[in-house]
Amino acid sequence: FAALVGLSAAAAPCVAPLQWEGRWVQYDHGTGRNHRAAVSYDGRNQRIRVLQQHKKHTPCQKFFEYIYLYQRMVMFQIDQKTKDCSKVALRESWDPFDIPDNSTFEEQYSIGGPGDSVEVQEWSDRKPARRHETWVGIYTLKDCYPVQETYSSNSSVTTSTRFYDLQLGIRDPSVFTPPSTCGSARPERMAGSEC
Amino acid sequence: FAALVGLSAAAAPCVAPLQWEGRWVQYDHGTGRNHRAAVSYDGRNQRIRVLQQHKKHTPCQKFFEYIYLYQRMVMFQIDQKTKDCSKVALRESWDPFDIPDNSTFEEQYSIGGPGDSVEVQEWSDRKPARRHETWVGIYTLKDCYPVQETYSSNSSVTTSTRFYDLQLGIRDPSVFTPPSTCGSARPERMAGSEC
Repeated sequence: FAALVGLSAAAAPCVAPLQWEGRWVQYDHGTGRNHRAAVSYDGRNQRIRVLQQHKKHTPCQKFFEYIYLYQRMVMFQIDQKTKDCSKVALRESWDPFDIPDNSTFEEQYSIGGPGDSVEVQEWSDRKPARRHETWVGIYTLKDCYPVQETYSSNSSVTTSTRFYDLQLGIRDPSVFTPPSTCGSARPERMAGSEC
Repeated sequence: FAALVGLSAAAAPCVAPLQWEGRWVQYDHGTGRNHRAAVSYDGRNQRIRVLQQHKKHTPCQKFFEYIYLYQRMVMFQIDQKTKDCSKVALRESWDPFDIPDNSTFEEQYSIGGPGDSVEVQEWSDRKPARRHETWVGIYTLKDCYPVQETYSSNSSVTTSTRFYDLQLGIRDPSVFTPPSTCGSARPERMAGSEC
């Protein structure tokens, strides 16, 4: 009965904002590492800019800026220090941060403490015939901002992304313009570690 | 510089509430499964009651109630349907849901959208000499409720727990009293699947 109430109360997924800026931490279950970044998300023009953020305790690490331009199916990878630039073809098509229309409502709940919380909904691509979902998205109830996205394959999680410090809109659209060093970009991805 | 400001602004961890009720979803990275439960947490008396929650698409699954009594170092596992009961000795000592005094401040940020968010702090047991942390706790800034706890070993995550729908206090302390079927409890843990 509770499940039915939940389903009827949340029949249609909310519509996520098309442009926002904020931060995320992406946990890569393959490598066991967290990647933090400042993110500009432009769903209208199908592009994302990811600026990796430094942590004190990673001396050998290179830090990159990534500019994904899905309308051109290309990604620029820029070394934040040297400005070396790689231009790499994108293989997977644009996948916006939103809740697809045919998603399955899982749950609604609040994150935080009493009187100091945010109400969210959890949606997935689970179907009755399939036991495990491959995507779970958690979005705020009020304005449909992303809170967490999790992707799995074969019942084990591959990446989970938590979003925070989100603001509506893009302050400076020039962040999606690759720097001049990308004019003569190398075609291979650069490695993230020097040691 | 930003890191120093962060450290001084959050020199001391907040003190988490001693008694609360709510729900959690625990992701077991070994099995790739999510476990949802209603939880009563009594830090004052070092006991936790976990009531597993049903999902429609798990027909072969048994669902249990768990009563952890750390002052007696014993856990009762009760089949929700048959009331069969197992009594199992606890091997690990009480580990409260709070931020230990010697924790390392990692970050402060908001979860949610503009004007509809909850401010949280992230703490870990990372030390300068160690590259990877084994515990990360995310707690609300205002009243120090748990939002997420992640445990890792050897740089790969073992379990992560997300908390939600939290309320202060324990409405009914009798949830920590095992049912009468536990008087003649079997000493082995019961398996969770029948198929």
